[in-house]
Amino acid sequence: MLQCCLVSPRRSVAESRRTRADILAIGVRVASVEGLEGLTIGRLATALNMSKSGVLGHFGSKEDLQLAVVGTAADIFTREVADQARGVEPGMKKLLAMCRAWVSYLERRVFPGGCFFTAAAAEFDDRPGRVRDAIAGLATVWDRDLYRQVRTAVAAGDLPADTDADQVVFEVSGVILALNHALQLHRDTKAPARARRALGRLLGYPIAPLLLFAACFR
Amino acid sequence: MLQCCLVSPRRSVAESRRTRADILAIGVRVASVEGLEGLTIGRLATALNMSKSGVLGHFGSKEDLQLAVVGTAADIFTREVADQARGVEPGMKKLLAMCRAWVSYLERRVFPGGCFFTAAAAEFDDRPGRVRDAIAGLATVWDRDLYRQVRTAVAAGDLPADTDADQVVFEVSGVILALNHALQLHRDTKAPARARRALGRLLGYPIAPLLLFAACFR
Repeated sequence: MLQCCLVSPRRSVAESRRTRADILAIGVRVASVEGLEGLTIGRLATALNMSKSGVLGHFGSKEDLQLAVVGTAADIFTREVADQARGVEPGMKKLLAMCRAWVSYLERRVFPGGCFFTAAAAEFDDRPGRVRDAIAGLATVWDRDLYRQVRTAVAAGDLPADTDADQVVFEVSGVILALNHALQLHRDTKAPARARRALGRLLGYPIAPLLLFAACFR
Repeated sequence: MLQCCLVSPRRSVAESRRTRADILAIGVRVASVEGLEGLTIGRLATALNMSKSGVLGHFGSKEDLQLAVVGTAADIFTREVADQARGVEPGMKKLLAMCRAWVSYLERRVFPGGCFFTAAAAEFDDRPGRVRDAIAGLATVWDRDLYRQVRTAVAAGDLPADTDADQVVFEVSGVILALNHALQLHRDTKAPARARRALGRLLGYPIAPLLLFAACFR
């Protein structure tokens, strides 16, 4: 009996975690294509064959669900982009690795609706609140990481001494936004090569395609 | 009596046009901030103190309303950006004038939610249909105009003979997307100067700020 009492709650916690992960996996796909506002409790409940209260019990409110989905999308971005440059020497080498992985992330359509964060930013930039703050915060963390690599590359002599690091980050982001736009709106298959060319010219080093065997979306 | 019969329908047509224009003026503002899906018939009816059927009578369906709002936004873009470069000599001069007006359009927040078409593209790029087609078509028309100016500038010797015009259009669009992103998500007041600097470097000619006395939104 004691064993039963100890085992059941553990299994229940594990099951609850699995259910939550299932909800978030579907939530990220739905939000990627239809936006974070398209993420209704009812929609997820139907997709997972759960009751609305069952889904709501895991998140409390639609805003909490949206925040959890943004967090899950951030984990995927970290795994698919940031982690690809982990361990690479800081400075130009790391900057090139980050850019290579970033282009690859869009080329492989890691999210079915293109860059999750570009779409989320466009949707929430005029809606003050916790979701907007989370999206802006994640973008700032990533921009600061790029900025640090540019500064290190300048210190190492890999970029000119008078380089404006913020300007480089601004222009690199622009190339990635143009790539996402061209892929999503025009299904332009030449866009990844264009993005690599633009980034290579910006940074003064060629950007090679990143070949990964990872599935498009996991 | 004959005169009455002739005048009344005319007045009615004029009134109907005014009402339609009023609906679209509010519709563009709502869609700019909350997206084209946020554009509900009920919402517009309340804002204009009309019945739902009164609003619907002007458009027939939500999709027709969305298309009409996209058309109105296109007219505003034409007036605020394309028309600013009208009459300018084709080639580099016209390209610079188009870029100058494009940056100014975002800097002045002509639409309260930033670039109407960037937001609309992010919202509809995964939703096949007439609205998506209209947004993609407008983007293509504008890109082709930019492309023509780049080609003319190359022919005139204002850009190197081996210039890839599609690549230039891709990179110019990236700068504008980065500007919109920085203004909308980070409220970065330095972004317009960064965009002018990036465009100036891309095209080899400085981009001067455009000073207009036009109201931010009309």
